[in-house]
Amino acid sequence: MKPIAYEDAPDAVKAVFDDIKSTRKVADVNNFWKYLANEPRMLRHVWESLKEVMGQGHLDPLTKELVYVAISITNNCEYCMASHGAAARAKGASEEMMNELFAVVGLANMTNRLANAYKVPVDEAFK
Amino acid sequence: MKPIAYEDAPDAVKAVFDDIKSTRKVADVNNFWKYLANEPRMLRHVWESLKEVMGQGHLDPLTKELVYVAISITNNCEYCMASHGAAARAKGASEEMMNELFAVVGLANMTNRLANAYKVPVDEAFK
Amino acid sequence: MKPIAYEDAPDAVKAVFDDIKSTRKVADVNNFWKYLANEPRMLRHVWESLKEVMGQGHLDPLTKELVYVAISITNNCEYCMASHGAAARAKGASEEMMNELFAVVGLANMTNRLANAYKVPVDEAFK
Amino acid sequence: MKPIAYEDAPDAVKAVFDDIKSTRKVADVNNFWKYLANEPRMLRHVWESLKEVMGQGHLDPLTKELVYVAISITNNCEYCMASHGAAARAKGASEEMMNELFAVVGLANMTNRLANAYKVPVDEAFK
Amino acid sequence: MKPIAYEDAPDAVKAVFDDIKSTRKVADVNNFWKYLANEPRMLRHVWESLKEVMGQGHLDPLTKELVYVAISITNNCEYCMASHGAAARAKGASEEMMNELFAVVGLANMTNRLANAYKVPVDEAFK
Amino acid sequence: MKPIAYEDAPDAVKAVFDDIKSTRKVADVNNFWKYLANEPRMLRHVWESLKEVMGQGHLDPLTKELVYVAISITNNCEYCMASHGAAARAKGASEEMMNELFAVVGLANMTNRLANAYKVPVDEAFK
Repeated sequence: MKPIAYEDAPDAVKAVFDDIKSTRKVADVNNFWKYLANEPRMLRHVWESLKEVMGQGHLDPLTKELVYVAISITNNCEYCMASHGAAARAKGASEEMMNELFAVVGLANMTNRLANAYKVPVDEAFK
Repeated sequence: MKPIAYEDAPDAVKAVFDDIKSTRKVADVNNFWKYLANEPRMLRHVWESLKEVMGQGHLDPLTKELVYVAISITNNCEYCMASHGAAARAKGASEEMMNELFAVVGLANMTNRLANAYKVPVDEAFK
Repeated sequence: MKPIAYEDAPDAVKAVFDDIKSTRKVADVNNFWKYLANEPRMLRHVWESLKEVMGQGHLDPLTKELVYVAISITNNCEYCMASHGAAARAKGASEEMMNELFAVVGLANMTNRLANAYKVPVDEAFK
Repeated sequence: MKPIAYEDAPDAVKAVFDDIKSTRKVADVNNFWKYLANEPRMLRHVWESLKEVMGQGHLDPLTKELVYVAISITNNCEYCMASHGAAARAKGASEEMMNELFAVVGLANMTNRLANAYKVPVDEAFK
Repeated sequence: MKPIAYEDAPDAVKAVFDDIKSTRKVADVNNFWKYLANEPRMLRHVWESLKEVMGQGHLDPLTKELVYVAISITNNCEYCMASHGAAARAKGASEEMMNELFAVVGLANMTNRLANAYKVPVDEAFK
Repeated sequence: MKPIAYEDAPDAVKAVFDDIKSTRKVADVNNFWKYLANEPRMLRHVWESLKEVMGQGHLDPLTKELVYVAISITNNCEYCMASHGAAARAKGASEEMMNELFAVVGLANMTNRLANAYKVPVDEAFK
């Protein structure tokens, strides 16, 4: 599939692109949106849910970007590591924070499997 | 494998259990540590690395617990969801924060696959 | 490991290659088979099971290719996305169908994690 | 987290529940929606996107349920296997079709790893 | 789906059950085979490939069971952990060996993600 | 993040690098360690646990490398496949052994999903 450029996009896609650009104050949308524009329904759903959930809310935006990076590493999604890593840095993540995040990701993936391997029963206190 | 109780544990295991209890100010260690005590070398390595990385550092401890929960959901580790969910709440996570975290986990797992499906090339700006 | 070309293959491998070529009416086998030929037992098992299951059966062949693509995206297997994506298109999948498939893959990966996160109990009606 | 019953739900949640019930012609919503109602924004986003993508479109609804089941097996989501398995059967999937689907899921998960293991390069014909 | 008992099985299934019983010198087949018998083609393919690959070969049978357990933990397949864990023990795995195996599984899942996170380039010496 | 060369490393990192080099009798450390040196705490934890677990123990070192390769294929970690594949070969794995390992990895990933799909209950004999 090919990316859809703004000038070639149908009106429904242009409207989403315009909203991304004005919300994020950027001159152009990232590659992710240009490819997702091949499926205009998902383009709108994904943008609307990300816009609502990733912005100001109960967790601060930087925390949410760090969570996004952690999941993208776990799932080995190179594009998502790059895009959300850049977003985390833009929102204030230092190199020390990113390195500590990587450490947590490594440890969680290890202890997830150790808990499986030993079939550890959930403590009463956690229920 | 069976859990190892404090009174039945070899000295090397007792020493780790004691350190967990005094560090966390708890009367007993969780099931995870009692099962992992079957492999005393890993018990020590896992505890020492968690103790050093999950405490005070470049990211605040609550953020790290939220990341842990997010990965545990992605990997479907029920024990780890329960234990780190409890830790997150103990460190101040409200129900609203947990719900928003779950939303981010869902969205990241969706967009990770959409980026794969379209083989989206990494934007120059992210490199 | 290196791919095994027809002319260099032992007879057991040649026999499988010949069957692939005559079944699929192609001049040469894909790279997957040339590499798998390094393990002649698996070459035969994989080919025989794919031949029997992916052809005419209870589900139509296109549906099965779409399922294959969906799993390959979920597992992030680039080769399999390419080969089964090509097979799906050869069997009639339009661009609109592929885009809708990608949408389903994204949604399923999202709701799988939301169901985990909330530990949703299975409804009586589904049992 | 606890499920939210219709009578206890805020208006925004009730509106989504009503739409699910009238769209699907059911007396009550499944557990998934009652739990997701803890996060009303995601409840609405997930419902709206599933409603639009899983209904009539470029792929027939049964095919999309089968894809959903296949991904849920791959990710080991028990709730999703049960709910989308029931939906697939309600839309016409026979036992033979479900068994053949399971076969495809097994084969795809096998060949995904074999392609990784041999680092098979993508054939020119697939590009 | 329900398990298929020997006495209710069609002849093609009975033949596979008989071969499993005589090869493994057991009075009855495990649950896995009774469920897989719902799809007689896969029953035969899976049995024939396991029989050929898991027995005597280039790797000793115990090593192959340990690999099977390691993958089953990584994928969180409880049935497979139980059945291949039992097979490993039957073939000579001690508790110390199982504990060390679990340690390796934990470490590999950690370093897999650390290598992803840092996007470590493959050393020339490994190519 | 950039790799840390020995001459630019802080003393704590140099000490780990020196220990890796003398333990493994190599002139320089692999890329993995140079990148992980960005997080000196994890560098030390990962090295100390690998050093203790992957060496002589209850399982022979080659078996542990094969397990490592199997998990790395399952998780699709290209760097880890390359580095532990090289280590397995250095410890005596023949091409026939690697091919048989790949076969086991494929089969385990298939039967893990078949056991999930059929929700096979664990046999009494395995408990």
